[in-house]
Amino acid sequence: MTTFNAKQLANRGVRNLQPYQAGKPIEELERELGVSDIVKLASNENPLGISSKVRSALQDTLSGLARYPDANGFYLKSKLAKKFGIATNQITLGNGSNDVLELVARTFVNEQHEVIFSQHAFVVYPLVTQAIGATGVAVPAKDYGHDLDAMLAAITENTRMIFIANPNNPTGTFLTTEALAAFLAKVPEQVLVILDEAYYEYVPEQERAPSLAWLNDYPNLLVSRTFSKAYGLAGLRAGYMVSHPDVADLMNRARQPFNMNSLSLRAAEVALDDEDYLQQSVAVNAAGMEQLVAFCEKHGLNYIPSYGNFLTIEVGERAGELYQQLLHEGVIVRPVAGYELPHHLRVSIGLPEENDAFIRAMEKLL
Amino acid sequence: MTTFNAKQLANRGVRNLQPYQAGKPIEELERELGVSDIVKLASNENPLGISSKVRSALQDTLSGLARYPDANGFYLKSKLAKKFGIATNQITLGNGSNDVLELVARTFVNEQHEVIFSQHAFVVYPLVTQAIGATGVAVPAKDYGHDLDAMLAAITENTRMIFIANPNNPTGTFLTTEALAAFLAKVPEQVLVILDEAYYEYVPEQERAPSLAWLNDYPNLLVSRTFSKAYGLAGLRAGYMVSHPDVADLMNRARQPFNMNSLSLRAAEVALDDEDYLQQSVAVNAAGMEQLVAFCEKHGLNYIPSYGNFLTIEVGERAGELYQQLLHEGVIVRPVAGYELPHHLRVSIGLPEENDAFIRAMEKLL
Repeated sequence: MTTFNAKQLANRGVRNLQPYQAGKPIEELERELGVSDIVKLASNENPLGISSKVRSALQDTLSGLARYPDANGFYLKSKLAKKFGIATNQITLGNGSNDVLELVARTFVNEQHEVIFSQHAFVVYPLVTQAIGATGVAVPAKDYGHDLDAMLAAITENTRMIFIANPNNPTGTFLTTEALAAFLAKVPEQVLVILDEAYYEYVPEQERAPSLAWLNDYPNLLVSRTFSKAYGLAGLRAGYMVSHPDVADLMNRARQPFNMNSLSLRAAEVALDDEDYLQQSVAVNAAGMEQLVAFCEKHGLNYIPSYGNFLTIEVGERAGELYQQLLHEGVIVRPVAGYELPHHLRVSIGLPEENDAFIRAMEKLL
Repeated sequence: MTTFNAKQLANRGVRNLQPYQAGKPIEELERELGVSDIVKLASNENPLGISSKVRSALQDTLSGLARYPDANGFYLKSKLAKKFGIATNQITLGNGSNDVLELVARTFVNEQHEVIFSQHAFVVYPLVTQAIGATGVAVPAKDYGHDLDAMLAAITENTRMIFIANPNNPTGTFLTTEALAAFLAKVPEQVLVILDEAYYEYVPEQERAPSLAWLNDYPNLLVSRTFSKAYGLAGLRAGYMVSHPDVADLMNRARQPFNMNSLSLRAAEVALDDEDYLQQSVAVNAAGMEQLVAFCEKHGLNYIPSYGNFLTIEVGERAGELYQQLLHEGVIVRPVAGYELPHHLRVSIGLPEENDAFIRAMEKLL
């Protein structure tokens, strides 16, 4: 008789880990409900699809795929360094920014440490903390956003890391440059601050924090960015962390050598140069945001003003039910009860006609 | 004045981690030495390039890349389950098998544990062990291969995991079904055995172990496979672990949700069905192996008989120098001094003309 008990053998943090809940894929909804003509506004993806320049570069790259990727990402790092005025030895490439967010925790955090993040902040922060067996400290939000004073007050001698999402997902809240600068000046140097700027490109230029320039002043600051949103490469997994070179050196030791595959590397290189596509992404997003905000205001629905490519709308106690009803109408949005927002739904900004489909379905169901 | 010391902040295991040394990429050699017409026989890649069926499927998939991948890999898992007679809940998908090898260690191993592997075995085993801060126990090899009796004798009450590579990289050594079966019967149930079958498809069918069937008898057995070798998808990163469902459940909790990207998922699905390509891979490999073995025997060079897609040849004290000289001839092979094989070079099997280029260069230099 077997006495095998996998859970008992697993590390403490992993045992009760709840896996990340991804947005429902279009194909899954088709399989489950037999619905067609589906609009997915659930995962903050870029509604434009990949850029034509990226597409053509990928076609050229297909023939080399039996070779391993470049483990050092030489060309992508060189391009990033040139574009952002940083050094290549400050960069850690990731299989999406999820990968570098996990990697920084595995590199610097252990069971003895506390990790601070905000209530309603991106779920990957508590997940990677728990997987390690460290103690997550969720600081109550202020107006749905990060309460930086309360986060500072939560620092103890066991704190090793603080995650800050700016803009934050799923609330779209944004911290000003002044607030962030004041915060960084007060964080002790042995506490690493991970500034997650996944939605950076959607923020108006004059409001963006000079986060990469701050790296010169704060060796404990790390900035993560992604190609999954404004650059339109969610399906390819490309992200990066910029940090002090010593921090990057340690993360690169622990990084899987081929974490970014050959196509992701190539696509990110090309996407970085494709300014037209980036501007179009931002313009489509701004127009769609106006469309959704106008819908909310017309119907007296509260929403959290958003700097991202999504809008989180208060729909009341029937949020869960409404999510299901929307699925039957062929519209996938994101329930956010897991973020302690049980009365809200998060809607990604789509193309005008996709936003219309959501609005029509809502007007039918409300 | 800053007192920031990144290394001091890093986890013990990561601090002195030496990153994985990848085979030299062709482009890097071009940049460094200005050599052209390069033959790379350094990373056990498939010399055929990707199959035409995979190529055409990838072209069809390009347009969906702004969407996130399916976090559950529904179609790929279904295909794997059907092909190998396993259940989908036994499968953990990986960004290459490197990813699942790391994941299993992070899920089950902590600083208190010992992890056993063989001398000359794949370097990822000690790397993932060290990254966690666990104690690696390298058991001396027998005839360059795994000494299973000595590995059994190395088990203590702190042993949590044993890695077995079959065939092993970089030696190409192979364990018989009988030897493995006897070994598994003696391993205590609380010790997980990771059977890494990255080169499985190159082993003659009648000699392959019934490893997936053994899962029914041994809940502590895990079998990893890859699409990087015989399936020709090294650049796309696709691998998987098959295990007891409870073990897979825990690994999937700790897995990054989008660890395999959309193109890797699709390519692996198509590659799995492409029997013609697989047979061609195996045939090209067998012919190339004959070519390299004949070269060794002609020149009285010792080699380690190999079940993989590479041959590890004893070239004596000048191995390091010979590696450099071969680079100048435009031939990239793999030095294996890091595997305690300072007098050997590992040569991947290429196309007939690539093998010829290696042989010509060797005959010039020897």
